[in-house]
Amino acid sequence: MPSKLTVGDLQVIRRVAVFRGLKPETVEHIIAPATAVTLRRHERIMRQGDPATAFFIVIDGWVKLYRSTLSGDEAVIETMTKGDSFAEAAAFTGSRYIASGEAVTTARVGRIPADHLAKCIYENPLIASSMIASISTHMHHLVQQVEHLKVQSGVQRVAEFLVSLALANQDKSAVALPYDKVLIAAQLGLTPESLSRAFARLKEVGVAIDAAKVVVKDVAKLRQIAVNDRGSVRGSLRTMH
Amino acid sequence: MPSKLTVGDLQVIRRVAVFRGLKPETVEHIIAPATAVTLRRHERIMRQGDPATAFFIVIDGWVKLYRSTLSGDEAVIETMTKGDSFAEAAAFTGSRYIASGEAVTTARVGRIPADHLAKCIYENPLIASSMIASISTHMHHLVQQVEHLKVQSGVQRVAEFLVSLALANQDKSAVALPYDKVLIAAQLGLTPESLSRAFARLKEVGVAIDAAKVVVKDVAKLRQIAVNDRGSVRGSLRTMH
Repeated sequence: MPSKLTVGDLQVIRRVAVFRGLKPETVEHIIAPATAVTLRRHERIMRQGDPATAFFIVIDGWVKLYRSTLSGDEAVIETMTKGDSFAEAAAFTGSRYIASGEAVTTARVGRIPADHLAKCIYENPLIASSMIASISTHMHHLVQQVEHLKVQSGVQRVAEFLVSLALANQDKSAVALPYDKVLIAAQLGLTPESLSRAFARLKEVGVAIDAAKVVVKDVAKLRQIAVNDRGSVRGSLRTMH
Repeated sequence: MPSKLTVGDLQVIRRVAVFRGLKPETVEHIIAPATAVTLRRHERIMRQGDPATAFFIVIDGWVKLYRSTLSGDEAVIETMTKGDSFAEAAAFTGSRYIASGEAVTTARVGRIPADHLAKCIYENPLIASSMIASISTHMHHLVQQVEHLKVQSGVQRVAEFLVSLALANQDKSAVALPYDKVLIAAQLGLTPESLSRAFARLKEVGVAIDAAKVVVKDVAKLRQIAVNDRGSVRGSLRTMH
């Protein structure tokens, strides 16, 4: 059930990128009618094709955005966590959600009604600029993802994923995988088998995976692999998708 | 050299999606300082990382948007043709181009200065809404592309590409490939060899490729393959990247 925002919710929501550059009172005005909901794992927050009645901010946990294909497959577009917002563009343009959103861990998500957002923007066009900046950031991430899917080998994508985890973590010796390996594979555009093979290959450079924990000995080396996998190995790794 | 817009240029530019929903006089005001340039093949119109001083509209020909990776690879993000616009988000937010743009055929491209756009939006916030709608469309395409790269086999992507070509063509019997096969492969996230294998495989369903011409006998069948490649074949095709 949606509930009013707690003090903790507000602390996260006020700081999201979508509100950057706006005056505190403007932000308070936008989020005045916001609610938050705690989702169980696998619970859905928005459905692809439904009218966009709100946009969302992840307060805690992980949410995956995915599309259902005509053949019944599921394509994971992105995974979102604390401080990430999604569906701003659909809410802003009053169109339909282009993806579904589902909690992959217990997750708390803030919800800001689209009709209220439209009213705020009408009253204060500056909000439109900050929304566009936020939408541009999403687009940038999508462009990077297209780049990686087209150019990087599976091992490179896994290496890059682990580097980003290690860098987000203060204690670089052991990193918890944020969600299960099936989802990690889907997010990276790999089959679960290819992900396992990539993990096995990365053992050679000191990456140890034990259940949901990863130990990365040498982040710099891993980053080097992400950028430029050895040519000789690469040809064969390219076929690992 | 940039030149004033011709009558033919204006006919294309006035109809682009980015101006949809705006009054004719508003569109005229936005495009008042626009120029157009005819690019030779391989000539660049914008460079990744440069400050975004304009956004662009393809009037004729094909332009590829691509990113240069740290390892020296080139990732083709999208190919744009008549009526497509690009770099609106970067121009709007006054940030930097996130990709480079280069003509892949002789191409004519309209250029609308970013500073003028900012002034127009300041005077008339409605323009922001139509810009966001256009940026949303780009995002939708990127999301679909991520979906296809993650879920579809190489053959499926090639089938989908040929279906879209066939549908854009009135006479469905013979379709000209819009640009060379190396670029088609890059756009679809395939190696040139994988593209050749996909073409060979699609011969079985009546697709004939002769130099830069493709004859598609059965568009419906091709579309079916794009949506749902036969499971048994698919496993092996998935490894064709």
